[in-house]
Amino acid sequence: MSVFSVDPKAGNPVTSAVLDEVCKSLGVKLKHDEHEDYRKLLAVFDESARELMEMDDYVPATDLTRFPRNDVCHTGASDNTHGAWAWRCSIRDTQPNAGILAGKTTCLKDMISVKNVPMLMGTEFVSGYTPNMDATVVTRILEAGGHITGKAVCENLCHSATSHSSSTGTVENPHAKGYSAGGSSSGSGVLNFWSHTIHWLWQQRAHKRPSRTNDSTVLDNALLLQAIAGTDNIDDRSFAAPHRSNIPKYHDLLQVLDEPKRLSGIKIGIITESLEVPVLDPRVRDCFSNAAEGFRKLGATVEEVSIPIHKKGSTIWTGVSKTGGYLTKLHGGAGRRGHVMHELNSLFAEALNDPAKWDKAYVATKNIYINGAYAEERYPALLAKATNLSRKLRDAYDTALQSYDVLITPTLPYVATSHPAKDASPLEQIKKQVGLTSNTCQFNQTGHPVLAMPIGMLPPLEGPGVGKEDVKLPVGMQVIGRWWEEAMVLRLGYAWELEHDWKSMDA
Amino acid sequence: MSVFSVDPKAGNPVTSAVLDEVCKSLGVKLKHDEHEDYRKLLAVFDESARELMEMDDYVPATDLTRFPRNDVCHTGASDNTHGAWAWRCSIRDTQPNAGILAGKTTCLKDMISVKNVPMLMGTEFVSGYTPNMDATVVTRILEAGGHITGKAVCENLCHSATSHSSSTGTVENPHAKGYSAGGSSSGSGVLNFWSHTIHWLWQQRAHKRPSRTNDSTVLDNALLLQAIAGTDNIDDRSFAAPHRSNIPKYHDLLQVLDEPKRLSGIKIGIITESLEVPVLDPRVRDCFSNAAEGFRKLGATVEEVSIPIHKKGSTIWTGVSKTGGYLTKLHGGAGRRGHVMHELNSLFAEALNDPAKWDKAYVATKNIYINGAYAEERYPALLAKATNLSRKLRDAYDTALQSYDVLITPTLPYVATSHPAKDASPLEQIKKQVGLTSNTCQFNQTGHPVLAMPIGMLPPLEGPGVGKEDVKLPVGMQVIGRWWEEAMVLRLGYAWELEHDWKSMDA
Repeated sequence: MSVFSVDPKAGNPVTSAVLDEVCKSLGVKLKHDEHEDYRKLLAVFDESARELMEMDDYVPATDLTRFPRNDVCHTGASDNTHGAWAWRCSIRDTQPNAGILAGKTTCLKDMISVKNVPMLMGTEFVSGYTPNMDATVVTRILEAGGHITGKAVCENLCHSATSHSSSTGTVENPHAKGYSAGGSSSGSGVLNFWSHTIHWLWQQRAHKRPSRTNDSTVLDNALLLQAIAGTDNIDDRSFAAPHRSNIPKYHDLLQVLDEPKRLSGIKIGIITESLEVPVLDPRVRDCFSNAAEGFRKLGATVEEVSIPIHKKGSTIWTGVSKTGGYLTKLHGGAGRRGHVMHELNSLFAEALNDPAKWDKAYVATKNIYINGAYAEERYPALLAKATNLSRKLRDAYDTALQSYDVLITPTLPYVATSHPAKDASPLEQIKKQVGLTSNTCQFNQTGHPVLAMPIGMLPPLEGPGVGKEDVKLPVGMQVIGRWWEEAMVLRLGYAWELEHDWKSMDA
Repeated sequence: MSVFSVDPKAGNPVTSAVLDEVCKSLGVKLKHDEHEDYRKLLAVFDESARELMEMDDYVPATDLTRFPRNDVCHTGASDNTHGAWAWRCSIRDTQPNAGILAGKTTCLKDMISVKNVPMLMGTEFVSGYTPNMDATVVTRILEAGGHITGKAVCENLCHSATSHSSSTGTVENPHAKGYSAGGSSSGSGVLNFWSHTIHWLWQQRAHKRPSRTNDSTVLDNALLLQAIAGTDNIDDRSFAAPHRSNIPKYHDLLQVLDEPKRLSGIKIGIITESLEVPVLDPRVRDCFSNAAEGFRKLGATVEEVSIPIHKKGSTIWTGVSKTGGYLTKLHGGAGRRGHVMHELNSLFAEALNDPAKWDKAYVATKNIYINGAYAEERYPALLAKATNLSRKLRDAYDTALQSYDVLITPTLPYVATSHPAKDASPLEQIKKQVGLTSNTCQFNQTGHPVLAMPIGMLPPLEGPGVGKEDVKLPVGMQVIGRWWEEAMVLRLGYAWELEHDWKSMDA
């Protein structure tokens, strides 16, 4: 054992009674003749812990002089017709900046840390949190010349796939009020539609291809990825990513695609099991098949590939997300290099112990605590096994990706549902999203790059828009690539987008 | 919330009483009218968990046909005069193999998983564990042609820096019986000395340089590193490492060093604070200064560099190791990609709940549980802050390493201590190692590559060897390099080793 002292100083607070209390909480007993020795060892640990707690924390630096926080304020109701803004601000480079995001505006999902701008995270379970640092992605957007105009509502601690759960209120679908805008990035989706996120005219393409709208989701995506990608030397999950100096020029790569059969030689696999999801709307399936046919017309080979474990994705995801989410909420994470925002961890610890806070927790938050505590007792190996099987899932897609350049699936199995009633029971709230992530949760586990892109519009099956001719809701497709092959994913999405006007397509 | 069903099947075991019990353990209360909804949500979670637990686990494959386990047996006492063998076996490639470890024998520290060979981990706190897979390092040694002849004793769950704690008994120092062989790799150190680990004549060098012994620690090291390095696509901590096809040829790189001033142009920094460790034996300091002078003679620039946070390393390390160690023992780790050996986690859970097992726990194991439970209650931000300050520590060395090719320090501040008495109290056991890792614990936190190499011999200060002229114990130096610059570290170690016979050096 590495110990750096065995002689606690006078006045040390670790008495024999303190040690007894700790042993009781652990459910263990010390022998009488070893008790004093362990008291001393705990006492010197207390001294070491105290010394650490008194040291200044090490927080990634934020340059408030170059990137001052202006106009930080709550959103007025009149500016927020769709309930999508969580907070407003204006942050940009005060120096001349001709970076790749110069002139572009963007908002950030309200679970991304921006120093001195309140972070609501869509919840009242924890509250009053204002971060003390900019996340790396914020620094990079600002350094690339981007203008950050606010925080977009996210669902309650990001625990909902429909847009009814935020403590700031329901987020409305920009295509049809009364319907979910999705989740957890509900506000971001809406504000992107309303062009508050990165957006500009892509004139050359626009005038050459009249069928296209004047924006390009994929080019925006490529530019943003280029601006934010690469290891930050803080989060160890980023360490495998290239250095900033070696990031592919995703955006520039996409502009050399202008031949007629621009996907000639590309092999695309449709995951068979993604079309067998129990809750798949047959119209979504048809819309997706049309989109796949579009790839064929561009010269690609498109065929089905069976990946049986895809169907177990929800089971594997559930094992990790409920138990891992529980442990992270309780203990704040362990075993990684990176920056830990322990002030936020403290708020979670306080919230669980405060009945008033607990009552305000969203149904999924309560469910995670309950599921996690239950699993810890009944299925202690659940997280471990789900972690191992996540690797099996990844390996299965990787095997398919040896034969295909990308895999594709419908994104969500059905179009947006209407919001639950204000007084809906917990289960009524959840019923609106059963199976919604049947084809997406897998890639949360495997880490493959995925582009989710719109491919058409369909009328709702229920809710206030039924029977109204002008009410249609988007359908999406996922393009899934090999690890580190974001460029291929973007290339396929862009090629499809150039030839199709998804807003006028249906099944 | 992503849920894939809200209709539990008939006979589901989650009753209302089960939910009440879980809420009680969490310390929370559900409202009456939401209780049945949460019961259903927990019931469908139980179904998902049960499905996952019934799925086959996904264990990295071990090729028992190509690499059969032969002669797996306990070590006889006569073969184990120094108590260094934990288990014997004979595993090697059955196919012709001319890999870089062909003809070399090696043993493995007994916390490295070898399928079908019992793993004792030096403890009786958990027992009866035989791994169901080979660790990646095992596969790589075998594929490189190495012959694995057994497992070397490690200290009790690797929780001791001196060699008295293993449940298989004291490990004797090969230089002097009665003294610690170090830890936690006590057995490996001894067996390395006795040439049971990778070892061969390096004849060309040997006859040219009569002052050298006929082995080269550094060349062995380089060859082994070359054989085992590179990402394994399993453990996410390895993902940032190069692919196997891009590993530097460390061993070959070292053979081009044969000019007279072979370190000309190299800048070496001595960490000032490493010489200010309270328990530093002045003779160790002198021995280290001699070694540093050796670098100067080889043409390198050697000067002191102050890195004040080095002194806080023990405080930071303590925060991470005690609380992180506690959480990992309780929950088995979370938040990573990789393989989890959950059968082993289960043994830890059982051990904590079994008074007979608890009694057998080594003092440091008990101390980790006690410290961790105490910190969780009193200093809940301790692990987070220690994690953040580990990054500060890393950045501080990285800043120094912008000016220096490597940093050097004494490895341990004093030579091996004598073993504690068989009936020593917990504190008497620990007193033999106070401050022993004052200069090494930092690099457990930062992940810099470090070569610890012997640089001389000194007589013991206490114990049975005092006054005996032929009893001397080794002194070591650490060579610390930039992340991914293992080649530079090895180059310096090798250059020093070529010119010095450490076994005949003292202060």
